[in-house]
Amino acid sequence: MGQKPSWMRESGPGWTEREPKVVYENPWILVTESRPIAPTGREALYGVVHMKNLALGVLPLHDDGTVTLVGQQRYVFGAYSWELPEGGGPVGENPLTNIQRELAEEAGLAAREWRQILSMQMSNAVTDEHCLGYLATGLHEVPPRPDENELIAVARVPFREALAQAVNGNMPDAITVALLLRAYHMAKEGELPRRLTEVML
Amino acid sequence: MGQKPSWMRESGPGWTEREPKVVYENPWILVTESRPIAPTGREALYGVVHMKNLALGVLPLHDDGTVTLVGQQRYVFGAYSWELPEGGGPVGENPLTNIQRELAEEAGLAAREWRQILSMQMSNAVTDEHCLGYLATGLHEVPPRPDENELIAVARVPFREALAQAVNGNMPDAITVALLLRAYHMAKEGELPRRLTEVML
Repeated sequence: MGQKPSWMRESGPGWTEREPKVVYENPWILVTESRPIAPTGREALYGVVHMKNLALGVLPLHDDGTVTLVGQQRYVFGAYSWELPEGGGPVGENPLTNIQRELAEEAGLAAREWRQILSMQMSNAVTDEHCLGYLATGLHEVPPRPDENELIAVARVPFREALAQAVNGNMPDAITVALLLRAYHMAKEGELPRRLTEVML
Repeated sequence: MGQKPSWMRESGPGWTEREPKVVYENPWILVTESRPIAPTGREALYGVVHMKNLALGVLPLHDDGTVTLVGQQRYVFGAYSWELPEGGGPVGENPLTNIQRELAEEAGLAAREWRQILSMQMSNAVTDEHCLGYLATGLHEVPPRPDENELIAVARVPFREALAQAVNGNMPDAITVALLLRAYHMAKEGELPRRLTEVML
């Protein structure tokens, strides 16, 4: 994070918390309900979904300008989804170690260089989910070790093809959309090696 | 959405749903728990957060290449957050009408041209939240009408300044990050009027 510019000032009172109570919990989420007082002075009703894991995603960018994507049946939407490799890492554990394990398990890849390129709040009106997004380069193959609940397909496609599907709505996972757009931005702004930029774009 | 390329094939069996039960509900979310059978054949445990609203966000891009951002105390993270104007629209209602109302209420702006530029799933392992992101141009001022639970500050800043804060982690809202990066991509790819691209970049 850089220094904040002057227009990013913070004004007004904050929220006043009042008696949150747990209404549901499982190993991944904790849902609380409360009636906090808004900065306007009015009482509000909130059901907040606390995530026990940090969301982690990685854009594996090969030396030839292709990227590796993974495909899987997603339970929540009841649909097949092509995405970048992602996973959850318990808050408090080293996120880089966890996303390195996900990249190996899902995509059968390890990387020489890792760079954190995004830090996002995924849904800040309802959940406290925080996501760290990485760029992995200098890739080489390792044996994949799939999770027992996952049946993962792998595809390696040109960067521009992946980006096109992310922005046209065919590949709607938000972490995937944001990381592909961020890599495009980095390439155009000269934040990636010139050789890699040339084959990506 | 465009046609899907051949690598985007869908393989393997889907999930088998089993007896979801409601564990929490309020006017905005419905949380269910179930033990579906994964494509691998194993039983899983899922707590799913169903969102009653579609998430909506808009990038208001002025003719001079500035964008309007809004600042507010966010309850869930207990922190002040600068973001693009956003809101929720009940599924089934016209999303464009709803985001137009949010832009007027929060930022005091109306737009001649609206373009849907992103369609995303915000957190597809836990929630079914879907987001539509818009670009609004041809802006003019209208009287702001703030929500009774919101105390909104407004800032108008150069596009590049907003983008810099989005990618450096100071403005982490995911819809904001993705929409600013998407507008950068559109400008660089010639998808915006040349005059606007020149003042943005």
